[in-house]
Amino acid sequence: MRAARYYDRKDIRIEEIDEPQLKPGHVAIDVAWCGICGTDLHEYLEGPIFVPAHGHPHPISGESAPVTLGHEFSGTVTAVADDVSDLTSGQKVVVEPYIIREDVEVKPGVDYQLSPDMNFIGLGGRGGGLSEKIVVERRWVHPIADHVPLDHAALIEPLAVGHHAFVRSGGKAGGVAVVGGAGPIGLLTAAVLKAEGLTVFISELSEARKAKARETGVADEVFDPREVDVAAEVRRRTDGRGADVGFECSSVPVVLDMLLDAVRPAGVIVNVSIWGHKPAVDMPKLVLKEIALLGTIGYANDHRRVIELVEDGKIDLGPFITGRIGLDGLVSEGFEQLINNNEQHVKIIVDPRA
Amino acid sequence: MRAARYYDRKDIRIEEIDEPQLKPGHVAIDVAWCGICGTDLHEYLEGPIFVPAHGHPHPISGESAPVTLGHEFSGTVTAVADDVSDLTSGQKVVVEPYIIREDVEVKPGVDYQLSPDMNFIGLGGRGGGLSEKIVVERRWVHPIADHVPLDHAALIEPLAVGHHAFVRSGGKAGGVAVVGGAGPIGLLTAAVLKAEGLTVFISELSEARKAKARETGVADEVFDPREVDVAAEVRRRTDGRGADVGFECSSVPVVLDMLLDAVRPAGVIVNVSIWGHKPAVDMPKLVLKEIALLGTIGYANDHRRVIELVEDGKIDLGPFITGRIGLDGLVSEGFEQLINNNEQHVKIIVDPRA
Repeated sequence: MRAARYYDRKDIRIEEIDEPQLKPGHVAIDVAWCGICGTDLHEYLEGPIFVPAHGHPHPISGESAPVTLGHEFSGTVTAVADDVSDLTSGQKVVVEPYIIREDVEVKPGVDYQLSPDMNFIGLGGRGGGLSEKIVVERRWVHPIADHVPLDHAALIEPLAVGHHAFVRSGGKAGGVAVVGGAGPIGLLTAAVLKAEGLTVFISELSEARKAKARETGVADEVFDPREVDVAAEVRRRTDGRGADVGFECSSVPVVLDMLLDAVRPAGVIVNVSIWGHKPAVDMPKLVLKEIALLGTIGYANDHRRVIELVEDGKIDLGPFITGRIGLDGLVSEGFEQLINNNEQHVKIIVDPRA
Repeated sequence: MRAARYYDRKDIRIEEIDEPQLKPGHVAIDVAWCGICGTDLHEYLEGPIFVPAHGHPHPISGESAPVTLGHEFSGTVTAVADDVSDLTSGQKVVVEPYIIREDVEVKPGVDYQLSPDMNFIGLGGRGGGLSEKIVVERRWVHPIADHVPLDHAALIEPLAVGHHAFVRSGGKAGGVAVVGGAGPIGLLTAAVLKAEGLTVFISELSEARKAKARETGVADEVFDPREVDVAAEVRRRTDGRGADVGFECSSVPVVLDMLLDAVRPAGVIVNVSIWGHKPAVDMPKLVLKEIALLGTIGYANDHRRVIELVEDGKIDLGPFITGRIGLDGLVSEGFEQLINNNEQHVKIIVDPRA
């Protein structure tokens, strides 16, 4: 079968590889669509980061580069192992793409995303969504209702990232959220917040991204920090109080500063973005307002709720898909497009059979 | 009566002023001892900060410089207003030195320390502990048992700062804490943590402070970061897990870095220190371990528990008193000593009658 394989920085190859074999406790899936993630771009431009470099096998997967890429994918079950009784061929599914030690329990209340040597399918080994087929441990396979289109479903993984950030924030329906940055993760985080009943303000500079934030309806207001003092505007619309929760989705220091101003005393800021450097943090503000600045990584026990939000039509993922390509175009029409023309895009999805 | 009055940066005067008059809802107190706080030093060297500059009255107190200094004090009740029935003359007390709006409720569950325009008695007006007498609203006066020496009691206020940081952290008896820095607040925070049943590791460079941390018994181990990799040492002593909670009490960037390394995944770091600049924060570490970095300011509903810890002998505040001076020596023997010889001192307390 064909697969996109990461060899090294700027070296991704579309190759013919062996089909994965079904084994006990596992599920065989025909991949339908796989999204390209910012993490994939980081691996391409600056990696290997999550990918275990050639000759340095990952302690859980035992694999190192080359590995198959792709961790945001949907598909259809084609076979299940004899010991898997609760999934059947033909079912639509998405994958929670973790590589996590066997002995780590995956259940509510367990922060399995923080377990030692955690990595992701499609980065740390175990195949990936940028190939025609994949075999995945049963515990990471989540069925979805038939009426959810498989192209939309490819976005459930990044949506789960936004949901996890929301859960981390402690935000509640009726509360007020500020999202700094309307890139893919900012928009999907906003979509979760809106669906969960919060009032959502977005701060964004880019015209294309502002338009997308407005068009998708994920924000009650979209502010341009060149036009308004976003924090002052948020306070004005909250009777001087400030937002309950803030989400840093931009990796831009002034956005973090804005959030420290925009949230209320005892407010929470969740850092969802990936920083290439160590930003200066205004500690006096964090101190005087007793703000909590929280890290968030991946998801844990988020997929069930996210799938429900999509199945119930509370989040329409269609408008976030801005490109559909085949596997051969992965680098030229996918990665390069997202790198050079990133404001025009939210999510480019790949059909590994095309 | 005599009082230490803050006029401006580097301009503190010991003067004769009128005695404060008792009024409804208030309590008259003869001050016994008043500690000098790091905040006072900041006002002296770089202020006015909390002190309302001359001609810029504080919105609640209505006062501006000159104001009487001193917010860490103990004393004896000499008179109570007719409408105060639960305190009597002769009772030993400490003051929770807040200036907070009348309409803000002061009760458990309310973050009254975060209410608008919050300031402190002894900084924002309403007299101070660096004077012979003070009249204080009943709600800020906390009785203490007769067996608690009044010199020790002057340290209850900074101890409440440490207690509030502990409460913010969510730390629990049986847990493991790392305290970065063994200055006054680091030591008193460690004292609370130890009394509340946590294992306490302290990181400190200064020989004098290391000695004090050891002598006071507030730490299970004191590490010198020049001698050991503190984070690695903490992990080694926690079966590789890391500390549950960390406390930044140094305003030193490498200490914050150490804490990000030393706490476990999903750990909490409370920033107790005052930063003169915006430190660079290692966001990738905060993200990958889902660390919570929390601000803390002052205290709220902490005094009752702190007084109990002192009354029950679980914390002995005596060893933290490293100097006793009179009001006339405030600048030369107090402030200048703490500025130029700070490693030798924890807390210098002032007898405003001497």
